[in-house]
Amino acid sequence: MVKIFKRSVLFIIVFILFTVSASAKNLNSMYQVSTINALMQGVYDGDVTIKTLQEQGDFGIGTLNGLDGEMVVVDGKFYQVKSTGKIELLKAEMETPFANVINFKADKVGEIAWARNFSELEKQLDAIIEDKNYIYAIRIDGTFTGKTRSIPAKEQPYPSLMEAAKTQSVFDIQNTKGTIVGFWCPDYIQGINVTGYHLHFISADRKSGGHILSGAIRTGKVQVARVREFKMILPSSMAFQNAALNKDYSKELNIVEKSK
Amino acid sequence: MVKIFKRSVLFIIVFILFTVSASAKNLNSMYQVSTINALMQGVYDGDVTIKTLQEQGDFGIGTLNGLDGEMVVVDGKFYQVKSTGKIELLKAEMETPFANVINFKADKVGEIAWARNFSELEKQLDAIIEDKNYIYAIRIDGTFTGKTRSIPAKEQPYPSLMEAAKTQSVFDIQNTKGTIVGFWCPDYIQGINVTGYHLHFISADRKSGGHILSGAIRTGKVQVARVREFKMILPSSMAFQNAALNKDYSKELNIVEKSK
Repeated sequence: MVKIFKRSVLFIIVFILFTVSASAKNLNSMYQVSTINALMQGVYDGDVTIKTLQEQGDFGIGTLNGLDGEMVVVDGKFYQVKSTGKIELLKAEMETPFANVINFKADKVGEIAWARNFSELEKQLDAIIEDKNYIYAIRIDGTFTGKTRSIPAKEQPYPSLMEAAKTQSVFDIQNTKGTIVGFWCPDYIQGINVTGYHLHFISADRKSGGHILSGAIRTGKVQVARVREFKMILPSSMAFQNAALNKDYSKELNIVEKSK
Repeated sequence: MVKIFKRSVLFIIVFILFTVSASAKNLNSMYQVSTINALMQGVYDGDVTIKTLQEQGDFGIGTLNGLDGEMVVVDGKFYQVKSTGKIELLKAEMETPFANVINFKADKVGEIAWARNFSELEKQLDAIIEDKNYIYAIRIDGTFTGKTRSIPAKEQPYPSLMEAAKTQSVFDIQNTKGTIVGFWCPDYIQGINVTGYHLHFISADRKSGGHILSGAIRTGKVQVARVREFKMILPSSMAFQNAALNKDYSKELNIVEKSK
């Protein structure tokens, strides 16, 4: 009877899904600074402080003015993964050109068992998310193996994100306990935010992390919050006013998000 | 010397532009219910009440549950232009499947002089708006001649907006004093809201109005607010969850917005 489970199945998907049904009516307001296309175009200075982000959420991702590293926000703590690999707590007066935060409250929880690569991880998360017409905040606490990156700060005149990403530091992370923090956005958010998964990592000891380029999860506890309120602040800077925001940068974005 | 003004120029653009510069830093938060693609797909029931809209703005446009007519919000008064042509004040407990409201505070003011058709009106407004990377709320107080429409309420199962619009009533409005209320959105808002101009009209005597299909303005005072905060609420309904929101409905939307 056990034979009906083919061997390969053992390597693919084993997850348990619970629905915390009562909380599915949460608005789960996500607060966003600027648009991804503005970031793609080199709009690296914003006028929103970390203090403002702290008022809007306790969980999220982003970057800092000048594209100075990767932001990871978890349990109300705001971290900067620098391009040196060092992780520091952000100061309230620092500013961000692009960030997404939310007061994280899970609507659904699940388990990841052996997602051997990023595409398997995506498939397992897809099955937990289900309804694909909302944005989702995603938290995974588990053991991560993979590559992350952080980009060193840039000077004016700013290069595009495609150019800037060529200077990224890549970190090789092995069997490290920590938290994956990020979002999933539907295609209709294209131009405004990254469509699909956009995940950052921070280790439990807060000594490694960054934007996830690729990776695997041995075991992980997944928590997902369905976003029903989306709040976006647009910068008033000349750089934002002059950026070409209406072009389709999907291809470039895919390179920037995944290339090592 | 007067000859340098060609005759044709007299018929095209004569407007004066003042910049109320101090207020350009306003966030001008726009509150939106659902997405235009959900409305295109027949998601005509929302769970946001007029009472909630009243808390979010005093100016805007939208429709009512069941696609029951055109909403016009001006000076804090919420009107429904019914498909019979009758205009009624909305009740606080009524609900909307799609609406945009803002607490209107002009950043810029200007004048429209003889915009002979909708395309001339658009050109004159374009020159006032300038920076095209933001959403704008637009108010014109003036004398309007043109065609407006309102769609009668639909029953479940709801048809698409393309189908529903075929049952619209069209109103012929002649030299009527009133207010044009609406928004302009950049292309990167595609799928989320109507790109370009989306304007409704209500007469000063509150006896005629609707969604503007075409029209001319003899003279009009323009007020424009640049939206830097965009807040969108997504419905929790099964209809919204199941709608095909990622398709490009630009062509269909253009027909729905302009066809008489």
